[in-house]
Amino acid sequence: MDEKYDAKKVLILGAGRVCRPAAELLTSISSMTSRQLPKSSVTADFEEQNCVQVIVGSLYLKDAEEVTKGIPNAKAIQLDITSHESLSCWIAQVDVVISLLPPSCHGAIAKACIELKKHLVTASYVDDSMLKLDQDAKSAGITILGEMGLDPGIDHMMAMKMINQAHAAKGKIRSFVSYCGGLPSPAAANNPLAYKFSWSPAGAIRAGWNPAAYRYQGEIIHVEGQKLYDSAAKLRLPDFPAFALECLPNRNSLVYGDLYGIAEEASTIFRGTLRYEGFSQIMGTLVKIGFFCTESTPIFKNGIRLTHREFLLGLLGISGKILPESVIDEKYITDRIVALEHCKDKDTAVKTAKTIIFLGFQEPTEIPSSCKSPFEVTCLRMEEKLAYSKTEQDMVLLHHEVVVDYPDDHAETHRSTLLAMGRTENGKTTMAMALTVGIPAATGALLLLANKIKANGVLRPIDPEVYEPALDILEAYGFKLLEKIE
Amino acid sequence: MDEKYDAKKVLILGAGRVCRPAAELLTSISSMTSRQLPKSSVTADFEEQNCVQVIVGSLYLKDAEEVTKGIPNAKAIQLDITSHESLSCWIAQVDVVISLLPPSCHGAIAKACIELKKHLVTASYVDDSMLKLDQDAKSAGITILGEMGLDPGIDHMMAMKMINQAHAAKGKIRSFVSYCGGLPSPAAANNPLAYKFSWSPAGAIRAGWNPAAYRYQGEIIHVEGQKLYDSAAKLRLPDFPAFALECLPNRNSLVYGDLYGIAEEASTIFRGTLRYEGFSQIMGTLVKIGFFCTESTPIFKNGIRLTHREFLLGLLGISGKILPESVIDEKYITDRIVALEHCKDKDTAVKTAKTIIFLGFQEPTEIPSSCKSPFEVTCLRMEEKLAYSKTEQDMVLLHHEVVVDYPDDHAETHRSTLLAMGRTENGKTTMAMALTVGIPAATGALLLLANKIKANGVLRPIDPEVYEPALDILEAYGFKLLEKIE
Repeated sequence: MDEKYDAKKVLILGAGRVCRPAAELLTSISSMTSRQLPKSSVTADFEEQNCVQVIVGSLYLKDAEEVTKGIPNAKAIQLDITSHESLSCWIAQVDVVISLLPPSCHGAIAKACIELKKHLVTASYVDDSMLKLDQDAKSAGITILGEMGLDPGIDHMMAMKMINQAHAAKGKIRSFVSYCGGLPSPAAANNPLAYKFSWSPAGAIRAGWNPAAYRYQGEIIHVEGQKLYDSAAKLRLPDFPAFALECLPNRNSLVYGDLYGIAEEASTIFRGTLRYEGFSQIMGTLVKIGFFCTESTPIFKNGIRLTHREFLLGLLGISGKILPESVIDEKYITDRIVALEHCKDKDTAVKTAKTIIFLGFQEPTEIPSSCKSPFEVTCLRMEEKLAYSKTEQDMVLLHHEVVVDYPDDHAETHRSTLLAMGRTENGKTTMAMALTVGIPAATGALLLLANKIKANGVLRPIDPEVYEPALDILEAYGFKLLEKIE
Repeated sequence: MDEKYDAKKVLILGAGRVCRPAAELLTSISSMTSRQLPKSSVTADFEEQNCVQVIVGSLYLKDAEEVTKGIPNAKAIQLDITSHESLSCWIAQVDVVISLLPPSCHGAIAKACIELKKHLVTASYVDDSMLKLDQDAKSAGITILGEMGLDPGIDHMMAMKMINQAHAAKGKIRSFVSYCGGLPSPAAANNPLAYKFSWSPAGAIRAGWNPAAYRYQGEIIHVEGQKLYDSAAKLRLPDFPAFALECLPNRNSLVYGDLYGIAEEASTIFRGTLRYEGFSQIMGTLVKIGFFCTESTPIFKNGIRLTHREFLLGLLGISGKILPESVIDEKYITDRIVALEHCKDKDTAVKTAKTIIFLGFQEPTEIPSSCKSPFEVTCLRMEEKLAYSKTEQDMVLLHHEVVVDYPDDHAETHRSTLLAMGRTENGKTTMAMALTVGIPAATGALLLLANKIKANGVLRPIDPEVYEPALDILEAYGFKLLEKIE
């Protein structure tokens, strides 16, 4: 990296997948402005200046080096954020900090940013501990811009754009519905579950039994965690009817009433997670069979390492018998699932049996000793068998639907959809999930560098000051929003 | 093009979209062999020789020049095939001819090939007139290899591989089911019909009222042309559950019993066309409303050019009234469709209304005077509104399912699936339809150049001599078959 005295500098903490798209956007912004970005007031600022310089800090230098390889104006450094001295030393040298580290790290980073009067951007939820720093951030004259990812992030921007437009036209929001999913592209959804994991499955699987709450036509609906999969509903997006989707309620939708300023007017407030059709039926059945039991069970206690097949037979309640290998096929597993009354219909039992076989539970391979519970066994198998190959694409789909009532008694349905696919360039695929988190985070840093965000304190991208220019930059970067009014 | 005396030469007739992938494969084969192709006996032959030289002949020189631009070892010529002298002159200079022209042109080309003792490859159906040339081709010692495209073409190869494998293992085919579709990729299916046209829509739309026949569990089922759309059935592919598909019976499936040698044993023989779910309901409703009426109707006879909106109101039976613009919205059109009893359920009426609006029939724009019938009006609107943008991908999906009974009373289901997406390179997209037709045609020429096909006369790729090496080359080129046995 050539040091340029007039260049702005950004420190990115964390060298995971999300980092590279963020670093690429930041370091290429001056060349992008002349080609791609709209001639808005934001981008004009960058045309004047030299490019942005990026420093990527990671606990392991080689991770940071890997992520910055080939990016001009990006430098890799080793940085242990638990060393306040070291952290402060690097923050002092830059204009804006982006933290892509786990949320538990943000507190220490935010405090250092306040001390040194530097802006901070994160893609994580703004939690209570972060909110408590609001006054300190204001006193320091800095902005802590959280929730600048996909969900949370782009979802807020799209929602608030629709809601504020409706309010400006004297409309009232009757219904707010939002769906978001990180999924394999349909071509990559080549297994019975129609799902793949790009990170470790444990977290994503645990999210499958989060309780949920939402408001539907004035009524508050609560869904218990263990009934979440049963509550999945078929969904077709009117503008993309080729995707066979379903949706699950996503935690507590009610808080979005206050956040978006529609709590008083909206009789429906719902946020859902997207999956492909069949996913929830199959996962729900796997749960009932016991594949995700988190307690270490007797079958792991006798000191002998079981095979996956013995594990499966145990779950199907026939561990005592010795069965010839050929017997444990799709039909056999289906019949056992039906006999044990783990699902309502045979079709679901068949799909579940296909999934069990796809995951290889009929194989006589030994279970690794690291696995202490059925949950761990199943997570490991899913991690192995439901991984993306190098050329397979993931996909992000975000869809908002808002029904607006106007004073003259007419109503409109406003839809806004973001569909982003992983991008393959020179044989290297960047995941849509990494792009849709990394690019908004970098966009937040750009807005702060360009002094476009005047407000100080702890912010989310729900104010026009943030989301209007941010959506401009995202669109210029290639995230096209499909917006319809009917 | 540098003339190389030891290079093989191929004449490609027709410079449409299919031509370029064929020309690229042929001219790159010697460099491909060392990198990508399996070290089979076919590919070894090409490693020894220099590359293949390609001559592309078109009635318009500029089309041929356009298609060969940037391909080393490809030459463009002007060629009017109705001039026997000119055609013969060029055929005499090459080793193999590929005709990508319409089927009506193949007769004259085949006769010239027989006279000059040169092999011919086409991607078209082998019809009776072509079959009549079988003896002449044999006498001339040449091969006329037809049906070397996608459908017909790759479908035969996949089917015969499965059927011959089953027969070799003493199995009997109980059921043969095959689905094929050229569709937009799900991301490009961004309209209510979930369909796009890459060529002129008229042919594809007329195919929607072809009568069909198939055998299902021993019974022969006939479907009248006007009931074809009603016979569409929801379909999910077990290995690709994310695609919301439906299928329509595809013409006469019964002839495949004889062609594939399973007429005596298979109680089910079905070939279907794939669309995304909802397509047939909507198209069937549009037919009933009168959008595809081919007669020139009174509304076009009074000398005044109608607007699309007047045309729509005429079809909805309310041409007399003058309606304010704002009235003709989705709800109004839905209610009229329901009132006229053009479809069974309101959901279909809503989807049809959304399609009508997407096609812009509510607009007060004048209908071009070139349109003489509702069919022509609707085709033109579909051509305009349902076209692919430059960056959108199409997709080809071909799926065979064969149930095999073995003498020991056990049965197996064999599945074979080809999923091909359009390829974007340097901002230029090659359609999956062009790839999946052009590459097999070029593969046929390669096999003939390498003397791998010993049989003379008129052939289809249903013999192992053709499909085994052809599938090897297709796979090496990147068409991966997903093959499963359950």
